[in-house]
This record gives sequence, C-alpha cells and structure tokens, in this order.
Amino acid sequence: MARLVALYRVPNDAASFDKYYFETHAPIAKKIPGLRKYEVSKGPVGTPGGPSAFHLVATLHFDDLAAIQSAFASVEGRAAAADMQNFASGGADLLMFESGEV
Amino acid sequence: MARLVALYRVPNDAASFDKYYFETHAPIAKKIPGLRKYEVSKGPVGTPGGPSAFHLVATLHFDDLAAIQSAFASVEGRAAAADMQNFASGGADLLMFESGEV
Repeated sequence: MARLVALYRVPNDAASFDKYYFETHAPIAKKIPGLRKYEVSKGPVGTPGGPSAFHLVATLHFDDLAAIQSAFASVEGRAAAADMQNFASGGADLLMFESGEV
Repeated sequence: MARLVALYRVPNDAASFDKYYFETHAPIAKKIPGLRKYEVSKGPVGTPGGPSAFHLVATLHFDDLAAIQSAFASVEGRAAAADMQNFASGGADLLMFESGEV
C-alpha cells in the first residue's frame, strides 16, 4: 500500500478554503484513478504544544507508488493538482511513500 | 478516529536512524495505550518533484483526540516521546487530528 499525503498550510481564509475543499476539490480528487480510500482531517491540526502550521491533512490511499505515479499522469489527477491553486492560498506540501503496518 | 503523524526530517545517518527506529523506538511506541494501528513509510518519502525533506513518516491510529492526549500523558507515551531525541537527529514534526473518510 502507498499513501499520498497533502499537508495544507493555514490559508488566508479558512472558511472559504473549507467550502471550496469539500464542495469542489474533494469531488474532483475522488475521481482520481486507483484511489482506494480518501481520508481528511476534521477540525484543527494540532501539535503536542499547540496549533500547527497546517489547516488540513488529506491522506489518499493507493495500492503502490506506481499507482500514485499513474494517478498524477492521468487527466483526473492533473485536474486535481491544477485545482489546488484555486484554494490552497497558504500552500501545500505533498508527500508520497509506500507504507506498511508495524 | 484520530491520527498522530510523526514526520521525521532527514537525519544525519539514515542507516543508524533506521536501525534504531525499527529495533528500539517502534517496540517502545507500540506499547502506547490506546494505539489501534501503527503504520510506517517504507523506502523514500518523495514529492511529485523529487525527494522530500523527510526520511520517515509514522502514522499512529487512535479512537479520538482524547485518546491521543491520554497517550501523551501515559508513562509509555512519555517514554516514546523522550526516546525521539535518541535517533531523530534531523528533528521531527508531530501532527494530531481527528480524521474521517470522504
């Protein structure tokens, strides 16, 4: 299994971000081929010491890294990536990795 | 459900980090009360454009944020947190959040 984690930094307007994310971006992202599961943080993204620099964390599950690479190359994946500029005003970090249970 | 995500930045010595993480730290972390599932990245943590600043991503699953807070307050949780200074030479970011499927 592999994960694509999108770490969205605190945006200029959190309410607008949330509205766009759930009403527009998530439906686009859900069309990405090979996506097995799509998890999104609910409420604040904290640290043990208090607030974090992040507003939202999305975790997309795929079978393996090859599936993530195929997803990025797909029409649907390119649409989801391009859509990020429409709402991620604080920027975002994308991390991708194979994952296993320990 | 809630997640505690540990993002370990690239350490000084990756081989020593890995040996310590899997032989010593993971067994300590697995004793944390309330831990439901423990996932760790395997191989490189990349970005769409190439390598990331991170060496390893650990995702710990708990029932809710209250369970994470209880875990941090426990003897086992404090031991796991204290042990991080023994191997995380590049530093680490800890993020905690409630999570749901979309």
